[in-house]
Amino acid sequence: MLSECDIPKYWYNVIADMTNKPLPLINPGTKQPLKAEDLYPLFAKACADQEMNYTDRFIDIPDEVRDMYRIYRPTPLVRATGLEQALDTPAHIYFKNESVSPVGSHKLNSAIAQAFYCKAEGVTNITTETGAGQWGAALSLAAKHFGLELAVYMVKISYNQKPYRRSIMQTYGAEVIASPSMSTKAGRKVITERPNYQGSLGTAISEAVELAMQTPNCKYVLGSVLNHVALHQTVIGMEAEKQMEMAGEYPDVIIACFGGGSNFSGLSFPFLRHNLSGEKQTRFIAAEPESCPKLTRGVFQYDFGDEAGYTPLIPMYTLGHDFSPANIHAGGLRYHGGGAIISQLKRDNLVDAVDIPQLESFKAAALFARTEGIIPAPESSHAIAATIREALRAKVEGRAPVILFNLSGHGLIDMSAYDRYFANDLSDYHVSDDEIIALTSKLEKIV
Amino acid sequence: MLSECDIPKYWYNVIADMTNKPLPLINPGTKQPLKAEDLYPLFAKACADQEMNYTDRFIDIPDEVRDMYRIYRPTPLVRATGLEQALDTPAHIYFKNESVSPVGSHKLNSAIAQAFYCKAEGVTNITTETGAGQWGAALSLAAKHFGLELAVYMVKISYNQKPYRRSIMQTYGAEVIASPSMSTKAGRKVITERPNYQGSLGTAISEAVELAMQTPNCKYVLGSVLNHVALHQTVIGMEAEKQMEMAGEYPDVIIACFGGGSNFSGLSFPFLRHNLSGEKQTRFIAAEPESCPKLTRGVFQYDFGDEAGYTPLIPMYTLGHDFSPANIHAGGLRYHGGGAIISQLKRDNLVDAVDIPQLESFKAAALFARTEGIIPAPESSHAIAATIREALRAKVEGRAPVILFNLSGHGLIDMSAYDRYFANDLSDYHVSDDEIIALTSKLEKIV
Repeated sequence: MLSECDIPKYWYNVIADMTNKPLPLINPGTKQPLKAEDLYPLFAKACADQEMNYTDRFIDIPDEVRDMYRIYRPTPLVRATGLEQALDTPAHIYFKNESVSPVGSHKLNSAIAQAFYCKAEGVTNITTETGAGQWGAALSLAAKHFGLELAVYMVKISYNQKPYRRSIMQTYGAEVIASPSMSTKAGRKVITERPNYQGSLGTAISEAVELAMQTPNCKYVLGSVLNHVALHQTVIGMEAEKQMEMAGEYPDVIIACFGGGSNFSGLSFPFLRHNLSGEKQTRFIAAEPESCPKLTRGVFQYDFGDEAGYTPLIPMYTLGHDFSPANIHAGGLRYHGGGAIISQLKRDNLVDAVDIPQLESFKAAALFARTEGIIPAPESSHAIAATIREALRAKVEGRAPVILFNLSGHGLIDMSAYDRYFANDLSDYHVSDDEIIALTSKLEKIV
Repeated sequence: MLSECDIPKYWYNVIADMTNKPLPLINPGTKQPLKAEDLYPLFAKACADQEMNYTDRFIDIPDEVRDMYRIYRPTPLVRATGLEQALDTPAHIYFKNESVSPVGSHKLNSAIAQAFYCKAEGVTNITTETGAGQWGAALSLAAKHFGLELAVYMVKISYNQKPYRRSIMQTYGAEVIASPSMSTKAGRKVITERPNYQGSLGTAISEAVELAMQTPNCKYVLGSVLNHVALHQTVIGMEAEKQMEMAGEYPDVIIACFGGGSNFSGLSFPFLRHNLSGEKQTRFIAAEPESCPKLTRGVFQYDFGDEAGYTPLIPMYTLGHDFSPANIHAGGLRYHGGGAIISQLKRDNLVDAVDIPQLESFKAAALFARTEGIIPAPESSHAIAATIREALRAKVEGRAPVILFNLSGHGLIDMSAYDRYFANDLSDYHVSDDEIIALTSKLEKIV
């Protein structure tokens, strides 16, 4: 257990330590690499500068951000003895419990930072998208704290599946719009072409970007994928590193679920630097859903971050920006691309990935709830499932690895998904190779 | 911030320090005072003994219970600076944050203890009732941890209003039955007489007691009202006392919401002992709903703890055991009686009470969510409303009191109530004097 004075004073910028840096973002019009200034119209300047910072290893966390972190940080590191016993495994399983934040997930770590930077630069309005609503809830709270008006495009399937998350955002004072919506050109196009489409993060991003560009004194804020979001999330790993040291162990395996990479990056990067320096040989495993397998089965290519093609081109593993993920309950993992840093690390074999079927994730979640007492978010359950796989394999092989995973959020708002699981009303969703090849073949060849 | 080694080793038994002890429980058949042994058929022996313990000031917390407390304890003590600023009050406002438990409320403090004692005595099955579901969720987790089978009678209005809490209990492996139900004599009688009745804690207790009495090796477990439940909850105040000392302040006013008294007792009693010894003059305010005003407007009388009259007679402020509380969203406060200890303290002017209209509680909740970031449970919102009243009054009077309240739980499972509040779809419910007089006049005169 750490005290408030142990809240990190710096974020860790892994790019500074990478031998092969991520490839640059590309302007889709000119096909030229982007500079930080090119992002100023869309993002807070501080975030744009962080996005392009390839040199500074540590970046100061502003006092105002640390002050707000104190609401819930440092978060606990827990030895999962109940789960270990249930699995009868010699592995030592630890988890970092990010579910204790008032919005129930790690997303607040970057929401606070981005809202602060916007406010400090005189911005009055911000827009964003959200999948399951974890990010939207976090940003709603941060926006209220710093006095910003916020509009959230929430993926329609989650808007309907998770009405409580919508209510949470509204309780914090945000405006919530189901996406695709008629309020933007991008949304209208999708609705016209596919009237029953239940939305995706890609489409919601397009709508949020479009609204930001058309609103005076307004910036767009993103909850994952980008370098500066991963940077803000490294408070997770910075704390965990100190806590593992207090526990007298060092992780052999680090596991986190993977949607756009924010919680995976946040836990992993501070440990990864010891791999990059050659001191350690920890394995890093990104647990993605079987239904959205960009790291395990996508192609490495330049692709848009959104469905409509408003964003810069990002060098990443992708399923294609018009990939339509199945309507799984882990809404936060329904994203087509892996982001620039993680994709480069994956390419260099510095991180691994596994894909987890939905039913396996819920089975793991139920076991975790009954042994550790915390009902996990459907997203986090993918990390738990991957942890269980490792722990059982270790048992067969007679090894006793130290496994650390990120409990990125709790599932108290996702109980309808649990109801459906226990009623045998959920399915797995396999993506065909044909679909992946068809969608990714359409991408422009720039690399 | 406290560390794990600061988890209290003892519960505080306020009865030992009371000059006027609570009157004894009475056997409704013989009209004679009960002994601990008389309760053994219904409760775990250890709990029955604690119920009747009028002498030991401190009672050891078993190691197994402290071990499980470590999942979420010690809980934070927070200075509510955002709320202070919004109210522009000179008052210093602190809250003890019990919402960080994995089930989202303080209820786990006693659930763990009671489940442990049952298990230690060889019990295999337990029954209980729950209003909003906070208690039922807590006991479901504790029962699973200690390997007990659990049946929960959940008040029908909450069963329908709060389906997620039902799902949480089921996810932990408990059986959940909407009350009134056809599974018990008590339930069938109510359903027959009042087919559309949405239930009350009093009826649900009758059903749970009846099932426990008819099931082999089964005990009944209660989440509030009784002395031993209040005892277990004193970990809250024991921690808070140490934390206030670390903050360099001592509370002038202590506030908690009041249903059956568990969270109010838990926070208050450890501080109250310094009033009883004459060292301090803290004010203690129980915040009850306007629609269920037993402490502010009930009569002090012997009454049953349940609707059907299965329990011993309890000396307490009551609205009558067949009082039907309005269908407010603070389901945990819909109980007709105040319990023996608190009622005696109230009678001796050692604690105060206020009644809070439902709309005022939600207004306070929304302000708290937007200033402190945590969406409170509708129950806890009554404490927040009472705190705001005190803080605003202090401002008018030019005083700067230190106010400490208990955030007994979060409201993430109660978002439908917030939706209705923001849609202007909630009402206040006033109870007429005629109704109170009519219901309480029917009680047998024993005092």
